[in-house]
Amino acid sequence: MPYPFARPYLTTCGLVPENQESPIHFIEPEITSARYHFRRNHFLYPNLLSFTYWIPIRGNVERPMWISLKELYDLPSVTVSALLECAGNKRSLFEPKVFGEQWEKGAMSQGNWRGVQLRILLEMAGIQEGSVEVVVEGCDRGKRKDSAQEVSYTRSLPLEKAMHPDTLVAYAYNDRPIPFKHGFPLRLIVPGWYGMASVKWIKQIEVSAKPFTGPFQTKDYVYYPEKDSDAGAFPVTAMNVNSSILHPTDRDILSRGIHVIEGLAWSGSEEIVKVDISVDNGTSWAEAELDNDGESGYHWIRWSYEWEASHPGEFTILSKSTDASEQVQPSSPLWNRKGYGYNAVDKVKVKVE
Amino acid sequence: MPYPFARPYLTTCGLVPENQESPIHFIEPEITSARYHFRRNHFLYPNLLSFTYWIPIRGNVERPMWISLKELYDLPSVTVSALLECAGNKRSLFEPKVFGEQWEKGAMSQGNWRGVQLRILLEMAGIQEGSVEVVVEGCDRGKRKDSAQEVSYTRSLPLEKAMHPDTLVAYAYNDRPIPFKHGFPLRLIVPGWYGMASVKWIKQIEVSAKPFTGPFQTKDYVYYPEKDSDAGAFPVTAMNVNSSILHPTDRDILSRGIHVIEGLAWSGSEEIVKVDISVDNGTSWAEAELDNDGESGYHWIRWSYEWEASHPGEFTILSKSTDASEQVQPSSPLWNRKGYGYNAVDKVKVKVE
Repeated sequence: MPYPFARPYLTTCGLVPENQESPIHFIEPEITSARYHFRRNHFLYPNLLSFTYWIPIRGNVERPMWISLKELYDLPSVTVSALLECAGNKRSLFEPKVFGEQWEKGAMSQGNWRGVQLRILLEMAGIQEGSVEVVVEGCDRGKRKDSAQEVSYTRSLPLEKAMHPDTLVAYAYNDRPIPFKHGFPLRLIVPGWYGMASVKWIKQIEVSAKPFTGPFQTKDYVYYPEKDSDAGAFPVTAMNVNSSILHPTDRDILSRGIHVIEGLAWSGSEEIVKVDISVDNGTSWAEAELDNDGESGYHWIRWSYEWEASHPGEFTILSKSTDASEQVQPSSPLWNRKGYGYNAVDKVKVKVE
Repeated sequence: MPYPFARPYLTTCGLVPENQESPIHFIEPEITSARYHFRRNHFLYPNLLSFTYWIPIRGNVERPMWISLKELYDLPSVTVSALLECAGNKRSLFEPKVFGEQWEKGAMSQGNWRGVQLRILLEMAGIQEGSVEVVVEGCDRGKRKDSAQEVSYTRSLPLEKAMHPDTLVAYAYNDRPIPFKHGFPLRLIVPGWYGMASVKWIKQIEVSAKPFTGPFQTKDYVYYPEKDSDAGAFPVTAMNVNSSILHPTDRDILSRGIHVIEGLAWSGSEEIVKVDISVDNGTSWAEAELDNDGESGYHWIRWSYEWEASHPGEFTILSKSTDASEQVQPSSPLWNRKGYGYNAVDKVKVKVE
């Protein structure tokens, strides 16, 4: 096997480093098992022999400290059921096409993350006046294509998001230790934000009085609406309201009769309140049934719509979701040079015979 | 699991019936394990309780007979290393798009099939004068979308191909019984032809004095070059000369330096003699190195080409293979309404930073 770490049962977008989709047609209704969680890496997997089991919490704090895994495990824990979606999910759908991993619909997975609220650790260390961000560094590092210098994967959060009660320093996924590939022993979990914020293999946590300017903050994970200039750029943060049609699959040939159109819908933080389906390419719409357990939350919901395909022909099926803050999927995506945040109305074309 | 038989580690093109690609980036150089063999079905899996363990060989023969599995196993066997490629492999690349499973590059797999030459069985039964075809019926059956009548999956071979020494009634794949999903207990193997010819779950073998006209022979697996008429239609038979670039992946972003471009090349029956690579969208070409063990055969070969990407920019990489009968991949595919036999020059676009 030329790529010993990647798995044949995930859909390959890239191999070195490893970028593989979740088998989105198969994932169980609520929980993606670790085995089928999507993988998105910026560097090769880190050498954890360099991990000390003591995490420094430092920078603009009253009491710089090191916290051990043992101490972390002993702190009060919370569990958050959260969807992680790669900012590049559905990148392959942009027109004109953009470079980068050609993710289809499977660069997202969800499950139960357990750990300590980041704010507990920050309060233990004591945030100083004038702090604006919390910078979290991962153990993964290497050279970027745009520079000869080695860098680590490091991202910052605004203080407010870092202090949010659902932002975790997590050590368990679905009641087991986080698998190595997904950030063992500690992973930042930032529910509602695209996955780049959830730094794996945490090495240190630093409170900062000024905005962080590392390349994964200011070069990557930025929306650049122009092909040839950086005009209008703004950072990638919360997940956009979105939906995917899982069945039927694109270009399927169906018999006449009743078909259940099924899929997923999600949004960064607000609950999905409505999913509209069109079977005539947007001329008319009807509401799908939502399989919503009533929890507000950070996870996707399933929806379904019974369609009676009574006559032969070609049909374009659309799904359009709306969240509680009245964000609605647009008919066209915001094209951007690096291909982040695709959330246009989902589309599948079928033929009824 | 709503689809109990399909596997999450294969790439889904359709689920009922099950159509899943092989993880083409991972398959070992020569042999695809059964687990990762692509799956292409026309109906749900058959109920093998209806299988009698006796296969009739009848029709236009001197001595109609039933042969048991035991008798088959006792006959002299041969092993043929063969690539099976779905006729719809790469269907997703046709422009304009066509309906049907949107196979990418992974609807092909190869391995060692062992069994009895079909011609031995036909000679045992004694082919009568005037026979033109051998019709092989599978146990899988159901309703097609274009008719209310139930039919079985049945295909015919011209007598000459049926009598070819490499056409087998196979019972083993990679030295193990053929897995149920791939045709247990008996599968016809027709090396060099697209996979539709290799009927799974053989139920009976019939010699015929006239051409077979079942729907999988005369409606499906026919090239229809016109969208709205059947003018110019001709049957799908041997695999076209073809190649796939496996690495880099499409829209990859590469650093400057040496990159190995790698892929596969294959043809219906003739050996691949040359694979040409272009890194400038066809302006200039150079020969790839072939990893060819010298066997003529029915399997793919690997090829590689070292490319020095010395300056930044966007590059379109092409691969074009030539076989021993001087068949060459065309620059455009033969568009056909059902999307079979795509074999245009393979193309991957990358950006060097």
